[in-house]
Amino acid sequence: MAGNSFGEIFKVTTFGESHGSAIGVVVDGVPPNLPLSEPDIQFDLDRRRPGQSRITTQRQEGDKVEILSGVFEGKTTGTALAMIIRNEDQRSKDYSNIKDVFRPGHADYTYLTKYGIRDYRGGGRSSGRETACRVAAGAIAKKILHQQNIKIIAYTLAVAGIYAKKIDLSVIEKNLVRAPDLDVAEEMIAKIDSARKNLDSVGGIVEAVIQGCPAGLGDPVFDKLNARLAYAMMSIGTIRGVEFGTGFQAAEMAGSTHNDKFFMDGNKLRTMTNNAGGILGGISNGQDIIFRVAVKPPSSIAQKQETVSTSYEETTIEIKGRHDPCICPRVVPVVEAMAAIVLVDSLMLQKTIL
Amino acid sequence: MAGNSFGEIFKVTTFGESHGSAIGVVVDGVPPNLPLSEPDIQFDLDRRRPGQSRITTQRQEGDKVEILSGVFEGKTTGTALAMIIRNEDQRSKDYSNIKDVFRPGHADYTYLTKYGIRDYRGGGRSSGRETACRVAAGAIAKKILHQQNIKIIAYTLAVAGIYAKKIDLSVIEKNLVRAPDLDVAEEMIAKIDSARKNLDSVGGIVEAVIQGCPAGLGDPVFDKLNARLAYAMMSIGTIRGVEFGTGFQAAEMAGSTHNDKFFMDGNKLRTMTNNAGGILGGISNGQDIIFRVAVKPPSSIAQKQETVSTSYEETTIEIKGRHDPCICPRVVPVVEAMAAIVLVDSLMLQKTIL
Amino acid sequence: MAGNSFGEIFKVTTFGESHGSAIGVVVDGVPPNLPLSEPDIQFDLDRRRPGQSRITTQRQEGDKVEILSGVFEGKTTGTALAMIIRNEDQRSKDYSNIKDVFRPGHADYTYLTKYGIRDYRGGGRSSGRETACRVAAGAIAKKILHQQNIKIIAYTLAVAGIYAKKIDLSVIEKNLVRAPDLDVAEEMIAKIDSARKNLDSVGGIVEAVIQGCPAGLGDPVFDKLNARLAYAMMSIGTIRGVEFGTGFQAAEMAGSTHNDKFFMDGNKLRTMTNNAGGILGGISNGQDIIFRVAVKPPSSIAQKQETVSTSYEETTIEIKGRHDPCICPRVVPVVEAMAAIVLVDSLMLQKTIL
Amino acid sequence: MAGNSFGEIFKVTTFGESHGSAIGVVVDGVPPNLPLSEPDIQFDLDRRRPGQSRITTQRQEGDKVEILSGVFEGKTTGTALAMIIRNEDQRSKDYSNIKDVFRPGHADYTYLTKYGIRDYRGGGRSSGRETACRVAAGAIAKKILHQQNIKIIAYTLAVAGIYAKKIDLSVIEKNLVRAPDLDVAEEMIAKIDSARKNLDSVGGIVEAVIQGCPAGLGDPVFDKLNARLAYAMMSIGTIRGVEFGTGFQAAEMAGSTHNDKFFMDGNKLRTMTNNAGGILGGISNGQDIIFRVAVKPPSSIAQKQETVSTSYEETTIEIKGRHDPCICPRVVPVVEAMAAIVLVDSLMLQKTIL
Repeated sequence: MAGNSFGEIFKVTTFGESHGSAIGVVVDGVPPNLPLSEPDIQFDLDRRRPGQSRITTQRQEGDKVEILSGVFEGKTTGTALAMIIRNEDQRSKDYSNIKDVFRPGHADYTYLTKYGIRDYRGGGRSSGRETACRVAAGAIAKKILHQQNIKIIAYTLAVAGIYAKKIDLSVIEKNLVRAPDLDVAEEMIAKIDSARKNLDSVGGIVEAVIQGCPAGLGDPVFDKLNARLAYAMMSIGTIRGVEFGTGFQAAEMAGSTHNDKFFMDGNKLRTMTNNAGGILGGISNGQDIIFRVAVKPPSSIAQKQETVSTSYEETTIEIKGRHDPCICPRVVPVVEAMAAIVLVDSLMLQKTIL
Repeated sequence: MAGNSFGEIFKVTTFGESHGSAIGVVVDGVPPNLPLSEPDIQFDLDRRRPGQSRITTQRQEGDKVEILSGVFEGKTTGTALAMIIRNEDQRSKDYSNIKDVFRPGHADYTYLTKYGIRDYRGGGRSSGRETACRVAAGAIAKKILHQQNIKIIAYTLAVAGIYAKKIDLSVIEKNLVRAPDLDVAEEMIAKIDSARKNLDSVGGIVEAVIQGCPAGLGDPVFDKLNARLAYAMMSIGTIRGVEFGTGFQAAEMAGSTHNDKFFMDGNKLRTMTNNAGGILGGISNGQDIIFRVAVKPPSSIAQKQETVSTSYEETTIEIKGRHDPCICPRVVPVVEAMAAIVLVDSLMLQKTIL
Repeated sequence: MAGNSFGEIFKVTTFGESHGSAIGVVVDGVPPNLPLSEPDIQFDLDRRRPGQSRITTQRQEGDKVEILSGVFEGKTTGTALAMIIRNEDQRSKDYSNIKDVFRPGHADYTYLTKYGIRDYRGGGRSSGRETACRVAAGAIAKKILHQQNIKIIAYTLAVAGIYAKKIDLSVIEKNLVRAPDLDVAEEMIAKIDSARKNLDSVGGIVEAVIQGCPAGLGDPVFDKLNARLAYAMMSIGTIRGVEFGTGFQAAEMAGSTHNDKFFMDGNKLRTMTNNAGGILGGISNGQDIIFRVAVKPPSSIAQKQETVSTSYEETTIEIKGRHDPCICPRVVPVVEAMAAIVLVDSLMLQKTIL
Repeated sequence: MAGNSFGEIFKVTTFGESHGSAIGVVVDGVPPNLPLSEPDIQFDLDRRRPGQSRITTQRQEGDKVEILSGVFEGKTTGTALAMIIRNEDQRSKDYSNIKDVFRPGHADYTYLTKYGIRDYRGGGRSSGRETACRVAAGAIAKKILHQQNIKIIAYTLAVAGIYAKKIDLSVIEKNLVRAPDLDVAEEMIAKIDSARKNLDSVGGIVEAVIQGCPAGLGDPVFDKLNARLAYAMMSIGTIRGVEFGTGFQAAEMAGSTHNDKFFMDGNKLRTMTNNAGGILGGISNGQDIIFRVAVKPPSSIAQKQETVSTSYEETTIEIKGRHDPCICPRVVPVVEAMAAIVLVDSLMLQKTIL
């Protein structure tokens, strides 16, 4: 219970620092006899990796995954599945500009306060690089869900206040920002370009939809499906809020409008609206599960900022290096991965009802 | 792992249905030698109980707590502390109008689908009544935090789009809606009265502030303090979203504005703004922790609604009984309780760092 | 994680002190739609309760169980199932002789050292009375196993060095000591009577057999089925050792003799011997699971003993009251209960393999 | 919860198969600022590794550990610490003699039944090779305990019925069998040599003593210190039983003899005897903790054995390769490692008592 594991049956344990020798993940509870090899994992890793487009960081990391255990003759064995990704760029960089300073918005100060020691190289364990391991584990989860006809799709709904005007899932991978609206995508990209030129960064909103989830997943009281999903989402460092269905809008609605009325679509129960976002009383109701997360503007910006040094004196900092001016397109696969992990775990837990 | 427990060291397990013989809670990990008796618990239970004011449900439940174990001669012993609250009004009511129908917005359909059986009396286990147990456990957590000079205060920030214009913590318990602004409270109350008259309900926003939290609480990666808090909050049935600091606003901000700059306030490090809501990299930074939750309009409304019966035929329902037209004032102590449980657990986990 | 819960999916949380107002248990993960009422639980409670025969303690406790939640119209609902047993004899007894003294063999000293406070009334939380809650939970587990044709039978194999010479499961409940051999049972009873007359106590060995367990239960590495069973058994206060199959005898055997040879019994794989006790590599192999536990002689004896007071001065103690001269017959249902809890949990976990 | 993790705060997750590319372990909850490098780990790995002496298997594996994360500039950072050991000898061996056959005493049949797939190369995940990871994690645990002046020493008490006649801790590492009695060690070694010549194997008993453990460790009810230790020990594949203090002997003792009388040794409370093995009511009492485990004779023997094939036909098998005729000397560091993990976890949990 020191924070590096997530899940009950399908359980993910990650390790590794931004500039250590490797990052990795152990996935426990993978079903046996699932065909699996590195390319299955690599696909989503490539969607997350740095340097994938001109609007992400220009750092280049191959992020090549190696499966160390849990697969035999191309199939999973049901035992612990470990994967590592070697850090290619772990050479002794010049970190002098951040070694002795707390970067605003970063975890430098809190980690040092908590542990009395801090791996200052690129944020160490607090680096977003850790999410590559989640994506690797999530790729397995997605493959399991695929077998169950459950699909998880995330996309960039908004960047810096510019919202998609339509949701066309087919175009998400066809634009750099992973928006569901090609026209608005251009605006978003221009906004991101402009932020970078200003040595600044911008935030956004990522939305996810889960299609094909059967009714009945999730547990009562504390382990509601939305509670587990919120837990998963808020564990992604860059996320500042999460909402389901109508979310914060619900706060301004009347019950008569907000309640999703049930009706029969042939012999299938459905709801006329989906304000609840597919979850009632913490348990999936068979409608699409829909949620959104607020993505903060990246904290690493090139302009000069006021801050405090590790010797607790006021100073300024200019963060060198190539950083993401907007992290939304790279958060999309992370959101999908974490949602997939929660869903697989919920499916497995549901099987325990004898 | 069937959803009825929360926490790692300070661990809460609840049980009980809305109309069973009793509801209750086992709190594991209570520190020994803490002076404790029923009145310590009853105070917050009374803030949550039905019938407390004209804008809440008029059902009357005394909600008298009985401590069954874990206290000896007025002090906790460090062993499992159990409390029960007898359900006073468990007589054989006429539930014929909800027995065979799925109430819109409620968990009737999802519980039946999940378990193949459903205690239809007042929602059974899915009833909000279950949160009384959280409040009872939270009262112990608050007492522990009080010893550490940590204070958690929640309040109704908005009702149906009407927002408090100032935050005066001293007036929260002096108005029926638990708003931090006496003037606006009157407007909110009028709105709630109006909703009830229209056989309808309204939603709102509850905000919480945690004062005095030391830097260093929370864990890296998955068990970030905000992740644990989001998990706790979203497990409250009525909540549809949660955000920290600037929350969803962050999605429209630039990094240069969003980053909280560090400065020295004498020999104490502080931040000029608190957009992060007191948490950096998932670990408390010593500033106030601030978060908001979206509270949906209660699903139980008296007007006729279209729905489906348990024999899967379309029908209508009019939900009888006395229900809350706005649950915000009664959610306030639940939010405090869950936050207190997370905080105490985090404090205890922090002690494990040898 | 303060010790009061056991199990992963079928999860038992107990509470209560020997002389508090009640003891109780919350069982999470009970399958829905299981017919259940108090008499189902009471049967095993009566096998464990004090005063059941002349060779157990003569204290009389009715140990009447009350189900508080999780059952609706005679069937389980799948939600948290809570039960309590009121302590009948919680009047203000004269505990002056143990209040200020550490009883040898008891937990008085260790609890006080751990917690800085101690409920001295009958041992408080450390009392064997706590096992009544395990038996109540175990009764549910047994009912679930019964549906799966899995049967758990425990019996007193030896008392004070007197061993049963045959294993006749049909006579276990027909003799006071719960031995599987009526002739030897008389000798055992005589030995117990003699110990009581000498103001002393005796130990013994309880053996358990699990019939009908399918192959495949248990998990690799740390959660081997025998590891979970050993954990469960050693958590019973009076038990000093546990062994599976040939157990400590295996230490003196050769591999060629110890290996259980496989053969085909028709179209069913079986083993010629069962030295492994039904578990290979931590996973059940379809043979009977067999294990034994060493039961210490009860620490509460009436003769004068040297000890130390709570003010750390040497003194003597004579423990008043009516105590068990041999706890084996009352441990039998506790061993069955804990084994049943482990088995049900293992069955449920096995279902998670998609 | 698929069996590959152990511990609550100091939590160990292992992965890897006998003949996969690597085995490894993630240790969560390592205290920060602990000086640590590979040689700290390698020492105990060398005590466990194959080929270390003529009485162990003659297979040669260097078992060189690589730390992947959690250490920065020679000190632990408090974040997940991962280590891997590459399997040197993973070349495509001729496994034809075991691929299609269930080896008696091994997990071949149970794994295949459980998972429907089986990595037959050297036992795959069920191989004892997995314990190298426990030893690596245990080496860290021991280092932490060393700082607290707690020492764990295990040794071979008996081989094939030949018992050490004295306990001289200073000679354990001076004889191949790790016995605490040099004279008897020679007899044990002769017995092991003889078993190997007979294409057979022998069992034994390993005893462990924990010195310097403070009173107060362990939790009530289910998480008694002896319960956690028994759980840990029985998770080692080769172990068939575990007993504390007098253990199974207690079954033949009277309470008046078995109770350890308290006395004052100066201003320190002690017990005259240590029949309880240092634990009362599940909580350490400050005396040495003493337990023994029964080690079965290794199942891999070279002589012809009757068995069943994976197509469920009777056949015979002769297990080729170089196997341990007695595993006791190599189990010793594994017992120490698992005990150390339990102790460190207990120490950390004890700190959560505010």
